[in-house]
Amino acid sequence: MNYSMILSVIGKVLTVESVFLLPALVISLCCGEGAAAMGLGITMALLVAVGLPLGLHKPKRTDFFARDGLAIACLTWLAVSAFGALPFCISGAIPNYIDCLFETVSGFTTTGATILANVEALPMGLLYWRSFTHWLGGMGVLVFLLILNPLSAKNSGENMHILRAESPGIKIAKLVPRMRDSASILYRIYIALTVLEFILLLCGRMPAFDALCLSFGTAGTGGFGVRNDSAASYSPYCQWVITIFMLLFSVNFNVYFLLLLRRWKKALGSEELRLFAGVVAGSVLIISANVFRFFSGVEETLRHAAFQVASIISTTGFSTVDFDAWPELSRALLLLLMFFGACAGSTGGGLKSVRVLVMLKAVRRAVNRVFHPNAVRLVHMDGEVLDDDTVNNVCVYFVLYAFILCAAVLLVTLDGLSYETSFSAVAACLNNIGPGLGLVGPSLHYDCFSWLSKIVLLLSMLVGRLEIYPMLLLVMPRLWKKK
Amino acid sequence: MNYSMILSVIGKVLTVESVFLLPALVISLCCGEGAAAMGLGITMALLVAVGLPLGLHKPKRTDFFARDGLAIACLTWLAVSAFGALPFCISGAIPNYIDCLFETVSGFTTTGATILANVEALPMGLLYWRSFTHWLGGMGVLVFLLILNPLSAKNSGENMHILRAESPGIKIAKLVPRMRDSASILYRIYIALTVLEFILLLCGRMPAFDALCLSFGTAGTGGFGVRNDSAASYSPYCQWVITIFMLLFSVNFNVYFLLLLRRWKKALGSEELRLFAGVVAGSVLIISANVFRFFSGVEETLRHAAFQVASIISTTGFSTVDFDAWPELSRALLLLLMFFGACAGSTGGGLKSVRVLVMLKAVRRAVNRVFHPNAVRLVHMDGEVLDDDTVNNVCVYFVLYAFILCAAVLLVTLDGLSYETSFSAVAACLNNIGPGLGLVGPSLHYDCFSWLSKIVLLLSMLVGRLEIYPMLLLVMPRLWKKK
Repeated sequence: MNYSMILSVIGKVLTVESVFLLPALVISLCCGEGAAAMGLGITMALLVAVGLPLGLHKPKRTDFFARDGLAIACLTWLAVSAFGALPFCISGAIPNYIDCLFETVSGFTTTGATILANVEALPMGLLYWRSFTHWLGGMGVLVFLLILNPLSAKNSGENMHILRAESPGIKIAKLVPRMRDSASILYRIYIALTVLEFILLLCGRMPAFDALCLSFGTAGTGGFGVRNDSAASYSPYCQWVITIFMLLFSVNFNVYFLLLLRRWKKALGSEELRLFAGVVAGSVLIISANVFRFFSGVEETLRHAAFQVASIISTTGFSTVDFDAWPELSRALLLLLMFFGACAGSTGGGLKSVRVLVMLKAVRRAVNRVFHPNAVRLVHMDGEVLDDDTVNNVCVYFVLYAFILCAAVLLVTLDGLSYETSFSAVAACLNNIGPGLGLVGPSLHYDCFSWLSKIVLLLSMLVGRLEIYPMLLLVMPRLWKKK
Repeated sequence: MNYSMILSVIGKVLTVESVFLLPALVISLCCGEGAAAMGLGITMALLVAVGLPLGLHKPKRTDFFARDGLAIACLTWLAVSAFGALPFCISGAIPNYIDCLFETVSGFTTTGATILANVEALPMGLLYWRSFTHWLGGMGVLVFLLILNPLSAKNSGENMHILRAESPGIKIAKLVPRMRDSASILYRIYIALTVLEFILLLCGRMPAFDALCLSFGTAGTGGFGVRNDSAASYSPYCQWVITIFMLLFSVNFNVYFLLLLRRWKKALGSEELRLFAGVVAGSVLIISANVFRFFSGVEETLRHAAFQVASIISTTGFSTVDFDAWPELSRALLLLLMFFGACAGSTGGGLKSVRVLVMLKAVRRAVNRVFHPNAVRLVHMDGEVLDDDTVNNVCVYFVLYAFILCAAVLLVTLDGLSYETSFSAVAACLNNIGPGLGLVGPSLHYDCFSWLSKIVLLLSMLVGRLEIYPMLLLVMPRLWKKK
């Protein structure tokens, strides 16, 4: 491991984090929230005190391998969460540090699971910071750093290693030859869509603060709201706007880039996108039919069904109704959609539509092989042949995902809560959704768990957001050796 | 498809089935069970009437491919179940044919899930038949036929295709060069172990009829009992005997063959066996610690923990206590063990220990590749290199298994029963266990489901027993074309 390089990157990220805390501090000062302002201020000072010396320190060695990139992703995310949790703790808004950490990891990983029973009691500055962590975590904190300050302008290998460790999907997309330019284009699309949602919500007469925080939460597919009822009390217009933007943010951002280049056919013909759209449409129809009797009229039924489906499949986690009270078919379908997840290259979590697609193709090939042992079959996607390694890696990823799911569920059941609660809590955290079923349903929160379970759950969130491999470093001490 | 060959095999199996019904008929006649005897007699007559002409008919064509073997497995299992269900129906013991079919498929697939609230009300002849289906299904009905009457004495290719379609595991074991001799050795070990258990149970003063039926149920890893409380009212000695035999029958039968050849090291050194033993030991310890307060003393705790673990991991499904009332950790662990399953080449179901082992190795290789992209890694098992195809096929099998699980759970949740009940029912049927959690817990039964769910569940049992591929023919009409 190249520790001097790793520490330097972490230092830079922490310094940037202190700047990102500034708007929250300003809001707290404007609202006269003394304790919150103090918490935010002290945290900013600490971040600068720790981050600046580390970041300015020039790395001794420049050799840099895949595992260094993975270590940077793992440690950076732990570090920004550990510091990002301090404002809640210092201000006294959340007394217990584990709870603060749970809330902050839930924010950065765009999970949106909360331990707070009364969100509205939180100071405005902290509410803003909580939602802003979603926006930062959605596109990635390291991606942002690399736009500002790439490790090496000439050789993009290092940057690539880091981006790969942080970006979801089966392969990293290079929109344009230089990685830095690609990242910058993605961030610009991200900002534009966020601003557009903010404006549309303002048009629906949503209070500006709510509109801002909800736009952050939607853009990052996070799900922290600023009201205790999540999105239930907003107007139908605003609910539709959020529904549409949750879906827009769960689409592969390459699609928007291709649309900007007016390559319509390539943009909209992607097999991943078509599977995703099909699953969304099918799920909305099935759930609408299943819950029709709970609502008055077609628009209301469709709105709530579409909102909940979009919220879960995009892995956002807002809610307009308590879907935990819906019939079993709808509940089971939503639980399944948690694992399906959004498209790769979006801000959403879960397994990702493209992985499900590749697995479906792998299954089809295997079935064909059983019935026609001598036939040679290739797996195609979007008109190109997928190499065997990619297909097999996706299947192994699924196996590893299932193993981690089982281990986490077993640990969480130590608390003795119902199987449904334990299983859905892990599913909701591992897939970065937020609310689950039972005691962690949309109208409830995660304070029912012990501190051990909370740590298991927050690690699950990081495992889900970073797509497993970087977090495995925590259980592989052998790899931390210097040489 | 070579239909004349397929029909000829099915005919022979049906004829053999009529002979297997004879002991049940004798028992019914001795006990003066008129209705049951009539049901059994009529079924035997029908089997001969249908089976004999089909079986004696000489196939026109002799070409035979993998898909013909799969079709034979699929159709034979459906046929023996459809006819095997008739005695329950004709005798009026179970009025509804879907229920009779559920019970019989549950028997042949060695699942042991029952729709009967009061098992003890069933006539003795039918109780015997119910348990005997476990014994037949455990080692395989086609394997038995091929010992009696191989398709072709010279070319073992045809027999191989059929055996492969019916035998569990990642590759079919050839103990000796000729397939027929291998099958015959396996059946002799099977019979010897069954007889040994029967004698040991008799030594524990278990009534002879109970001992016989329980030996059948243990040998096939089925789980149908003859008492309403399953195995709760038998003596601790008998419970220990059953525990040990449930584990013995979930070991790969090759191990016994190697032991007979005195190749101790190869027999006991198998990685699959060691993983299986480790999981059993670990689970018994964890559950013992978790449920210690429910029992008086170490022996009682260990006995119930070991019985339940052996029953679930061997996919038998007997019970000595209502484990559905145990703490969440134990329940979740048992649910997980349902999927782990027994060893390949045993009579047990589930994913099989060897598949979990291969998946663990595949995961380790993938993780190593991520951290050391340039290193070349091979997967070894028992000192030999596993080829990539085998490893990848196991992972794809797991993916397919998960897809089928999800689809079946969604269909079953249409009944509106709790998620736990629906999920564990599918898990218990797909893995050929029997009892699940909630409304299908060990003290309850499957009559809570609609006929649609019962059909989904009985198809799940067949999918589990035949390891998916043969049953896929039902949804692949393209393959049924004659040429």
